Amino acid sequence: MSDFVVSSKVKGAYSVHFIDDLQTHMRQLAAGAKVIFIVDEKVDRLFSDALAPENPSVRRILIECSEEHKTIDYCKEVIRRLIAANVRKDDCLVAVGGGITQDIVAFISSILFRGQDWKFYPTTLLAQCDSCIGSKSSINFDHFKNLLGTFNPPSEIFIYPGFLETLSESEIRSGIGEMMHYFLSEGIGLAQEVSDRFEQVLHDRSALPYLIENSLRIKRAIIQVDEFDTSIRHIFNYGHTFGHAIEAITHYAIPHGQAVTIGMDLANYISLQRGMIDRTQFDRMHAILEKNTPSFAFTESNIESYFQALSKDKKNKGNKLGCILTFGPGKLEKVFIDMDESLRNTILQYSETYHS
Amino acid sequence: MSDFVVSSKVKGAYSVHFIDDLQTHMRQLAAGAKVIFIVDEKVDRLFSDALAPENPSVRRILIECSEEHKTIDYCKEVIRRLIAANVRKDDCLVAVGGGITQDIVAFISSILFRGQDWKFYPTTLLAQCDSCIGSKSSINFDHFKNLLGTFNPPSEIFIYPGFLETLSESEIRSGIGEMMHYFLSEGIGLAQEVSDRFEQVLHDRSALPYLIENSLRIKRAIIQVDEFDTSIRHIFNYGHTFGHAIEAITHYAIPHGQAVTIGMDLANYISLQRGMIDRTQFDRMHAILEKNTPSFAFTESNIESYFQALSKDKKNKGNKLGCILTFGPGKLEKVFIDMDESLRNTILQYSETYHS
Repeated sequence: MSDFVVSSKVKGAYSVHFIDDLQTHMRQLAAGAKVIFIVDEKVDRLFSDALAPENPSVRRILIECSEEHKTIDYCKEVIRRLIAANVRKDDCLVAVGGGITQDIVAFISSILFRGQDWKFYPTTLLAQCDSCIGSKSSINFDHFKNLLGTFNPPSEIFIYPGFLETLSESEIRSGIGEMMHYFLSEGIGLAQEVSDRFEQVLHDRSALPYLIENSLRIKRAIIQVDEFDTSIRHIFNYGHTFGHAIEAITHYAIPHGQAVTIGMDLANYISLQRGMIDRTQFDRMHAILEKNTPSFAFTESNIESYFQALSKDKKNKGNKLGCILTFGPGKLEKVFIDMDESLRNTILQYSETYHS
Repeated sequence: MSDFVVSSKVKGAYSVHFIDDLQTHMRQLAAGAKVIFIVDEKVDRLFSDALAPENPSVRRILIECSEEHKTIDYCKEVIRRLIAANVRKDDCLVAVGGGITQDIVAFISSILFRGQDWKFYPTTLLAQCDSCIGSKSSINFDHFKNLLGTFNPPSEIFIYPGFLETLSESEIRSGIGEMMHYFLSEGIGLAQEVSDRFEQVLHDRSALPYLIENSLRIKRAIIQVDEFDTSIRHIFNYGHTFGHAIEAITHYAIPHGQAVTIGMDLANYISLQRGMIDRTQFDRMHAILEKNTPSFAFTESNIESYFQALSKDKKNKGNKLGCILTFGPGKLEKVFIDMDESLRNTILQYSETYHS
C-alpha cells in the first residue's frame, strides 16, 4: 500500500501512511514529540501489548466511545482529563480508535486553545476506508444527530491493518457497504470485484488493505475539490440519505455501512422507477449489493416513521427530499424528489419485491 | 470613515463598513437574506427603537452577555433557542453586542452545522476598535479563562458609532486603553494625539470614529500576515500579559483596557530597568498612559497572587514569563523574562514610584 497526501484548505495538506509495526511506530511517535494519546478503551484492551507505552510517563487518556458519548458534555469531560494531564498548546493529541474516537478528538482539537494539532490511528474498517480523510467531525446535540461539528483533519493518519483482525463480521460488512458506495461512485469494476470474491473479503483480512486504498483514493479525488461539502462531494450521500433514516428508525440496530447498502439499493430502485437506469443495470448492481444486505424490510408498519426520518434530512428543500440517484455506476446525480404517495409506494414495492 | 476589507485564511476576506443609519441598515439586512439576530439584551433595551424589526416574523434571540455566560453551557442554551427558531444551515447569524456577544456567536457559528455564516454589529468601543476584526473567539472553561475558542471572523462587520453614545466613561476609558496599545505599537503620533485632547476623546463621541479607524488599520496590517497568532501578532500582547493578571487578581473589577493601560506602563518600566528604553522615552509614554490609568497599585499584599496569575499565562515557557517589552514607541519585542525576586522588586518599585 502506498502512502499519499491529501490537500486541504484547513490544513494545507495531511498525509496517510500505511504502517505494519504498530508498537514501534507509536513508541517512536511518543519519543519524538509532545503527545497525549486518547485511546478508545475497547481498543486498548484488545491491543494492550502494542499500545502500552515504553515510557510510563507518556500521557494517555482512555475514553468510552459510544454514540451516547458523541456529545459536548463528554468532550468537556475529556478536556478536563486533558487539563489534568497538563495539556499545552504545543501538545499533539493522538487519537486511537474508530469514527467516534475521531469525532471526539477532532472536535476537541478544533476548540481547545483555538486549535490543537492531532494525529489519528483509525482502528475500524469504516474509519480506515472512509472517515479518516475528509476533515469532518460530528457531534450529537440533544436528540439531533451530528448537528454540531467542524472541518478539522488530523495532520497525519496511520493505517495499521492489524487493527482489523479483531473486528466482527458485522463490522466488516459495515465497512464493505461504505467502500461499495465509493466504488459505485466510480464505476462497476471494484464493486464487481468485491462481489466476485465476497467470501474472501469477508473472512480474509489481507484482502482489505487493497480495498481501503482504493476507497480512500476515490474519496480523496473529490474532497480535494470540495472539502467543505458544498457541491460535488454531495455525491457521497449516495445510499446515505436513505440509509441514515433506516438507522434512525431501527435505533442504530443496523450498522451504518449495512444501512447504506440498503440505501444504495433503494436509490437504485427509485432511479429505475424514474427511468434513469434500466432493469439490467439495476439487476447487476442489486446482485452485487444483495450479498451485503442485512435483514430489513419496509412495511406498512414502519413506512410512516421512515418518511418522518427522511423528512428531517438536512439536505431537504421544503417538502423535497434531497438525495443522490444514479444514471448507472459512476454516474451519480443529486436530485430533489417529492415526498409523496408515489415515493411511499415505490419504497414499499421495493421491499415487497426484494425483501420477502 | 472608509470601509475596508480584511484578508483571511479562514474566510478568504471579510469587510468592515461604517454605517450611519442603524435602523434602515438592519431592516435591509433582514429583508435581503435568511437571518437570525442574536442581540445582547442590554443593547436591545437601550436601542429598542432602532433594533425593533419592521417585520415581526424576523427571528431574534436576546442573550445575557456576562463573563459567566462565556461558557460552552451557555452556548448550548443559545443553540437550543436557535433550534427553536428553526435555524437552518443557510441562515446567517447576526450578532449585535460587545465582545462577549461576539465570542458566543462566533463560537456557535464555528460548530453549528460545521460552520455557519455570521455577521456582526459591535456595540462597545472595545469591540469596534479591536475585537471585531482578528478572527478570534474565546470561551471560558471551568476556571480557565479563554481556554477554548476558534478562529472564525464574521463575513461582514457593521460599525455604527451611535452605539457609543450610551457607553459609560469607564467603558470609553477601557476602549482608549486598547486603542493606545495599537497606537504605541506603531509609534508615538496617535498616542500623543489622544493624550493632547484627552478630555475631548473622553466626552465627545464624535472624536472616536477616527481613532477606531486607525486602531483597526494598525491591527489589520498585522492580522493579515499572522491571523493565527503564531508570530508577529504576538506584539499585540503588549500590556496584555501584565494586564490580564491584574484583571485576574482584581476579579475583573478593573475593565480590560484600563488594566492593559497599567500593563503597558509596567512593561515600559521593565523595559526601562533592562535598558531597552531611556528615562525620557519612559516618561513621555508614562505621561500619555497616566491620563487613562485606573486606581491600582502593586503591594506586598497582592504581589504573590499577581505572580501566581502571571505564572499561568499560556505564553510562558517553563519559569520564564513570555511578554512584550519595548525599545520605544513602534518597536515592540517579545521577550522571555525570569519570574524571580528581581522582577518582583521591579514591579513593587514601579508602584511605589507611580501609584503612591
